Amino acid sequence: MIPKNHPRYQSLVLRDKVKNAFMEGYLADTGMIAHGRGETFDYLIGEKTVDSAYNAIEAAVATILLAKHPVLSVNGNTTALALDEMIELANETDSPIEINLFYRTDDRVDKISQLFKDHGYNNILGSNTDDLYYFDKIKNPRATASKKGIYIADVILVPLEDGDRAELLKTAGKKIICIDLNPLSRTSQMSDISIVDNVVRAIPLMTKIAREFKNKDEVFLQNIIDNFNNEDNLKESLNSFKIMKL
Amino acid sequence: MIPKNHPRYQSLVLRDKVKNAFMEGYLADTGMIAHGRGETFDYLIGEKTVDSAYNAIEAAVATILLAKHPVLSVNGNTTALALDEMIELANETDSPIEINLFYRTDDRVDKISQLFKDHGYNNILGSNTDDLYYFDKIKNPRATASKKGIYIADVILVPLEDGDRAELLKTAGKKIICIDLNPLSRTSQMSDISIVDNVVRAIPLMTKIAREFKNKDEVFLQNIIDNFNNEDNLKESLNSFKIMKL
Repeated sequence: MIPKNHPRYQSLVLRDKVKNAFMEGYLADTGMIAHGRGETFDYLIGEKTVDSAYNAIEAAVATILLAKHPVLSVNGNTTALALDEMIELANETDSPIEINLFYRTDDRVDKISQLFKDHGYNNILGSNTDDLYYFDKIKNPRATASKKGIYIADVILVPLEDGDRAELLKTAGKKIICIDLNPLSRTSQMSDISIVDNVVRAIPLMTKIAREFKNKDEVFLQNIIDNFNNEDNLKESLNSFKIMKL
Repeated sequence: MIPKNHPRYQSLVLRDKVKNAFMEGYLADTGMIAHGRGETFDYLIGEKTVDSAYNAIEAAVATILLAKHPVLSVNGNTTALALDEMIELANETDSPIEINLFYRTDDRVDKISQLFKDHGYNNILGSNTDDLYYFDKIKNPRATASKKGIYIADVILVPLEDGDRAELLKTAGKKIICIDLNPLSRTSQMSDISIVDNVVRAIPLMTKIAREFKNKDEVFLQNIIDNFNNEDNLKESLNSFKIMKL
């Protein structure tokens, strides 16, 4: 047990969740290393949702609400850190959730499907029983897309996505919204909307904003999207990082 | 296999070593997360030995060469990343190597002992057959010290050390030299000399400088130590971190 008065309590709780996900067999070993990278970026951004992230979140929610077929992609790290939060966002925005793993194995997919089922979400896409399409000619397990989900999606939310997969989705003509603490990652750089924030803060905030935006008309939402520039916003995110002075 | 032309080739090779160490059972799961944190810091410092690190390395080598009982501490991460490099440094500075694990288990210690043996280093301290002392009253496996090593040491090099253990060693009156990419970590902050660099660069550089400094007299070495101020040097290290602009 992590003592509640530990100066890094919140961070250690998340670390524990990632560790447990690995022990339970649905997170790849490199998912743990990726979490460590994220810890440092989060530390340097002050472990809070900065203004530029908030603006990206608003544009992201407006984009999802105006999309024809939005899909919320989940992998091992997202499942470990924000399973219930993803279900809430899916319900609030009427978007299906799809399993989308860089290191896809039937076992990991089954475990993640079961976890979502245990938490009340029954029809997850991208499962082993789903009708899958592959984005490339060889049946690359890294390139799966559910025929009812990512394959026909116009907008995809990818929290914590690998650069190669993000590129694949982008090449397939999808509008990409990523959540990535590294503003310089390939995923952040190639996404249409890059939310530089921790998924544990960004996803519940998206749900809250979706609840508010659902009562707004299309002009309001389109205006938010039109006023958002991802390149400028990424530059602003970069300026939020600082090495605190001694 | 990692393609040699991958833009992050060197980083991926190190990541692979850490992953293999975990698979082989001598690295704790949190050691992988710690490696991820280090990856980010290394990325932000430009993956090079900055001037302040070079100065800390010179002071560290002078301190080790003037010490009565210097000891080089190794854990799972250091073994994974710089086993041969540690052996060379030990030979060059006549310092023994001691196994010093945050999550000490007999199995991990045996595996690390065997690895060092396989690489030609036979008398590693802190092994399961060593005569161990504990720094606290309860026999905390996190507080071991070999009676021929850390227990009597005046100077200890701790690459990649946890803050609690560093504090324990400091309280026991040891002079601490750490290698830690996070200049704000508790370990960096409490060490006498903090080398803000990647172990894979710092350790071979220490060996090279030791080879040069061994021909110098005590006055020369003492002068280097006297001219080094760790607090000032840490501030300089901090200034070397930057988020590159888009």
